[in-house]
Amino acid sequence: MSSSGKEEVAVMESYPMNGGDGTFSYNKNSNFQRVATNVARETINEVIAEKLDIKQFSPALTTFQIADLGCSVGPNTFLAVQNIIEAVRRKYESQGLSSQLPDFQVLFNDHASNDFNTLFASLPSDRPYCAAGVPGSFHGRLFPKASLHFVHSSYALQWLCKVPKELVDPNSPAFNRGRVHYTSAPREVSDAYTSQFAKDMVTFLHARGEEIASGGIMVLVMPGIANGIPYSRVPSGVMFDLLGFSLMDMAKEGIISEAQVDSFNLPVYAPSPDEMTALVESNGCFSIERMDLAAPGSKIDVSFGGHACMLHLRAGMEGIISKHFGSEIIDDLFDRFLEKTNEFSDRLNSAYRQGSQLVAILKRK
Amino acid sequence: MSSSGKEEVAVMESYPMNGGDGTFSYNKNSNFQRVATNVARETINEVIAEKLDIKQFSPALTTFQIADLGCSVGPNTFLAVQNIIEAVRRKYESQGLSSQLPDFQVLFNDHASNDFNTLFASLPSDRPYCAAGVPGSFHGRLFPKASLHFVHSSYALQWLCKVPKELVDPNSPAFNRGRVHYTSAPREVSDAYTSQFAKDMVTFLHARGEEIASGGIMVLVMPGIANGIPYSRVPSGVMFDLLGFSLMDMAKEGIISEAQVDSFNLPVYAPSPDEMTALVESNGCFSIERMDLAAPGSKIDVSFGGHACMLHLRAGMEGIISKHFGSEIIDDLFDRFLEKTNEFSDRLNSAYRQGSQLVAILKRK
Repeated sequence: MSSSGKEEVAVMESYPMNGGDGTFSYNKNSNFQRVATNVARETINEVIAEKLDIKQFSPALTTFQIADLGCSVGPNTFLAVQNIIEAVRRKYESQGLSSQLPDFQVLFNDHASNDFNTLFASLPSDRPYCAAGVPGSFHGRLFPKASLHFVHSSYALQWLCKVPKELVDPNSPAFNRGRVHYTSAPREVSDAYTSQFAKDMVTFLHARGEEIASGGIMVLVMPGIANGIPYSRVPSGVMFDLLGFSLMDMAKEGIISEAQVDSFNLPVYAPSPDEMTALVESNGCFSIERMDLAAPGSKIDVSFGGHACMLHLRAGMEGIISKHFGSEIIDDLFDRFLEKTNEFSDRLNSAYRQGSQLVAILKRK
Repeated sequence: MSSSGKEEVAVMESYPMNGGDGTFSYNKNSNFQRVATNVARETINEVIAEKLDIKQFSPALTTFQIADLGCSVGPNTFLAVQNIIEAVRRKYESQGLSSQLPDFQVLFNDHASNDFNTLFASLPSDRPYCAAGVPGSFHGRLFPKASLHFVHSSYALQWLCKVPKELVDPNSPAFNRGRVHYTSAPREVSDAYTSQFAKDMVTFLHARGEEIASGGIMVLVMPGIANGIPYSRVPSGVMFDLLGFSLMDMAKEGIISEAQVDSFNLPVYAPSPDEMTALVESNGCFSIERMDLAAPGSKIDVSFGGHACMLHLRAGMEGIISKHFGSEIIDDLFDRFLEKTNEFSDRLNSAYRQGSQLVAILKRK
């Protein structure tokens, strides 16, 4: 709630996924996220069966409220909430409480710049829930106090609220010359990212602590990395390196300037389980029911090669890249990127076997 | 909730107000509705002060839920809900219950084809409530059962779910030749409209009966007409006549065909207080706290002449007219309409003194 204000962080920028329904839309190119959702589904089912205590909520609970944070435009968000609702229904049945089954309300959240019109137009017509869209940054208050019973967020928390400013300061040891991310960068660069992510999690967990009812479950699915492993070994790390190489090639050919590359940094971060555990414990509102690292990439079939990889990156990153470099470089850039994926296919394939998906299951105390 | 299904009426068409922020946008041309909102404001303040029994809700009420049905893209919806929240706050204060003030959540509803992106982008940044958009027809279930405490709808219920098909059947006595509305039409035409409005109110009141908590208030503001007065005497009746005359002039000049005019009918209706009372009593879920007819037009200053009248009609009706006749006729049509407002200025001015705004205040039993 914006007016509550004090704990809210100004979100400097938001970069919606490619909207609409075209060739490069997120809607058509979120296969990776769908595989990730499938991997998370089993975990969610188990957690609802084992950890959700429906008797802990008001005995007269008439509405079970579910929020999906960073929902984008679908379709993955619809699959995820459908699965959650089915699991909660089974829970009521297994406890002989079918007659007390509440209505379900799903609150789809993303930045106000998200294409909610597309989201709303593609809502399943036979949905077993009341649907609502909630615009705004999840680093501030979005929902009434203690109103949520289940919160889900898939591939959204990796977006930092802002790029740490020392990354673009040529006089700082964290100046990130010739790269677009902390992958393969000096320690000072990754420290700046780590510090920003920690700040973001403080505001995120504080807001959710107020909004989630006691006993409510929060499932966070996001890029992650094993404790102590360099980011260059996970799939998105390889992709960000290749994106940086492609941009630097274009700079060397004079299509863009090196200064433009130096001043561009992708505001995305992947924490380790240990790091996430420490942040949750520091907040204090939640018990940690699970903190797993999965390798969804290893479940993607061989056809998920360079082309799919390029489409995946383009759907998610075209907006932010266009904003900085101009949209006229996009086709050229992703053609070069595609070539790089062939050149570096061994590194990419090896990365897909690494654990790169963090699933944190938290329960509001 | 779409899945509950049985009582839901298929809404054949939806005609969003002109979106965006341009010269002919609803956003820039909803002055009449704003005046109407101001007229309704005092009534709403009185009703909350006198009729809302906050102790009737759960003593542990943590979220006061407000829905605005047919919100369009703003800005009137924001003024209306702000006023409601301030009045509810005063009520808590006057009863010495300030310490128990709940959070406010406002659910902005309109058809899924409404421009929610514009609505969300223009949400007041200092709003004292959690905001959500709820897409879908209010002739079906939209919200969880017994979840709403205050429902507001301003200038939305006049839209019929569909045009009664006998209006476009040349073999029916209700065939509406040469007109675009039941204004100045034979009895059979207005009967077809009346019957459709009654059907729509059945589904509307049934859905709200399920969604509004006992003691919850619903304020419906919409075009209305005094018992027994012909529609040609109220402002929108005059406008629809002038719109029909303009279209028939164009048909006579061969710009469009008469058959196109014959097959076009504006699906909007204005009930009388007696008619609305009977529909609410037939539903049985609500007590009628007030059923007033106001003349907001009489409070509009002289500068609200033909031009403002044209902009008002264009912002609301351009979509539906373009869809039927093609967008290429729009500028010509509204130029002709503007001329007609000068020609018929006496009739228009006289109409503005008639009661034409129905305010129904209902309370869920």
